[in-house]
Amino acid sequence: MNITSAHGGGGELTQELIRSIFLKHYGNEILEQMEDAAVLSLPSDRIAFTTDSFVVSPLFFPGGDIGKLAVCGTVNDLLMRGATPLYLSVGFILQEGLAVETLDRIVASMKKAADEANIKIVTGDTKVIEGDGGLFINTSGIGILQTAQKISAQNAKPGDAVLINGELGDHHACILSGRLGFENEIRSDCAPLSRMVEKLLESKLPLHTLRDVTRGGLATVLHEIALSSGVQITVDDAVPLASPAVQGFCEILGLDPLYMANEGKMVLILPSDAAEEAVSVLRTCPYGAGARIIGEVTQTDAPCAALKTRSGGVKRLSPLFGEGLPRIC
Amino acid sequence: MNITSAHGGGGELTQELIRSIFLKHYGNEILEQMEDAAVLSLPSDRIAFTTDSFVVSPLFFPGGDIGKLAVCGTVNDLLMRGATPLYLSVGFILQEGLAVETLDRIVASMKKAADEANIKIVTGDTKVIEGDGGLFINTSGIGILQTAQKISAQNAKPGDAVLINGELGDHHACILSGRLGFENEIRSDCAPLSRMVEKLLESKLPLHTLRDVTRGGLATVLHEIALSSGVQITVDDAVPLASPAVQGFCEILGLDPLYMANEGKMVLILPSDAAEEAVSVLRTCPYGAGARIIGEVTQTDAPCAALKTRSGGVKRLSPLFGEGLPRIC
Repeated sequence: MNITSAHGGGGELTQELIRSIFLKHYGNEILEQMEDAAVLSLPSDRIAFTTDSFVVSPLFFPGGDIGKLAVCGTVNDLLMRGATPLYLSVGFILQEGLAVETLDRIVASMKKAADEANIKIVTGDTKVIEGDGGLFINTSGIGILQTAQKISAQNAKPGDAVLINGELGDHHACILSGRLGFENEIRSDCAPLSRMVEKLLESKLPLHTLRDVTRGGLATVLHEIALSSGVQITVDDAVPLASPAVQGFCEILGLDPLYMANEGKMVLILPSDAAEEAVSVLRTCPYGAGARIIGEVTQTDAPCAALKTRSGGVKRLSPLFGEGLPRIC
Repeated sequence: MNITSAHGGGGELTQELIRSIFLKHYGNEILEQMEDAAVLSLPSDRIAFTTDSFVVSPLFFPGGDIGKLAVCGTVNDLLMRGATPLYLSVGFILQEGLAVETLDRIVASMKKAADEANIKIVTGDTKVIEGDGGLFINTSGIGILQTAQKISAQNAKPGDAVLINGELGDHHACILSGRLGFENEIRSDCAPLSRMVEKLLESKLPLHTLRDVTRGGLATVLHEIALSSGVQITVDDAVPLASPAVQGFCEILGLDPLYMANEGKMVLILPSDAAEEAVSVLRTCPYGAGARIIGEVTQTDAPCAALKTRSGGVKRLSPLFGEGLPRIC
């Protein structure tokens, strides 16, 4: 069976879709009330709130699918402020002709990712548009802040170290491989980083900045942090930033891992004397096995991200300008 | 200038779009921090949370546009639980070829509606897809509950009266007129109902159920409330439900105002001895000038919505089945 415009009409067929797909997978006591808005209790008066839409093509790829991505992306954005993710909304825009079976697989995948991230899907919406059987997903999330630490892109300080939890470019290379029909072993790194951030918060390390490295890649993210904090952030090119498989892929296509999107990688910035301990904490987590120190924060009058080249020079890293890969997430 | 895929790449052009359009109109101290998630303070530990995507075509129509609709729709969903709307997220999916000037008008309209509804836009996201210059908007909202009243679709009780704040079908008839190229005076009723619900809450009236009458129309909404509450809800056909202009439009096209979508209408259910006072409160509000009692709630073993016909019979009202008007909101 395929989605038709009547599934978005708000009548009996919409209700049927909700019961047979959304409630079947997501079902919980809040969602099942089927109200205009979910009423929720919060054990904190400070929250984090974020939204993200997902338009990735293809819908399924090695390591994930649009549904897993939609859960992980929003969960990770909450985590980057030091919040504990609690509640998720899901808005579907379905194209006519989408197979209900495809939707079912995606919804099941979202439930699995939400369970791993320990976040509850409490409210949703479905619209149908003309098209050729694709879909778009918006997720918005609420998390609570239980720490007084100010974790912010404005908070990187001279003397800090810059860490990353693994190698760069896998998601980007995976989606591009799918688009180009390349067969290789590259899988998306798409993952919820909940457990890792929870461990960091438990460790009481003095975290200054957390940021997930998505569209625009590491160079763009570090550029934004550098500007927000008024510092220079220098990455050491002696540290390999991509796996051999992604590095090889990049060499063929003339891509740079520094500008490639990821969906399970984050930058962590904290005082350098706490950096080794932070690496140890990250490495105890499945998504942090490849954690390492990649750079440092220094004082400057001209905030920027920079790369220390292997020959010892330092070159400025511009943010991504122009294209990027469309529909990467 | 038109939107290109590079505006969704997450790099410099995305930032430029954010600065020149989104921050220009929405700008506030929370949004300007440009973090992965907004950190917010809440003066209550009970919140309402909701999401809605908007795909309406045409983008502009008499009485509103997709942006105003996106703000009002989510604000109204929060209000229907008795919540005070506080924070809004906005997710744009832009099609390549969209004129930046069109986006600018829509964003300005959202800001105006948000100001009227007294809600703050605190976080956002932008993606770009291929297409022919259209756009979709998701809004998610957070409101706080300051009342212990349980306002819910499960809470309609025998002996209650059913009220509505005005005539039905204007939004639906307006969008359909635009789609068909009909020229008439019909304007969408799209409006934020914040002030009206605030006055109801201040009045301390014993509110049982609030529900906005959107997709599927009054018949579908009353059917859902009847099932949730286990009651019969009977509307009196002696009360005219649509304006003469909409009634005329419906007669030409064979439409029924009971099944037509609205964007500024709500059903209010409360004990019948409080109904006249509630009508008075509603009528003090600009969007409630046409408020009246339209029906009653009774006990039943077979929950349903029903219509008392002018000849004195009672016929069951089925929920909308099948089509509806695609891309109405």
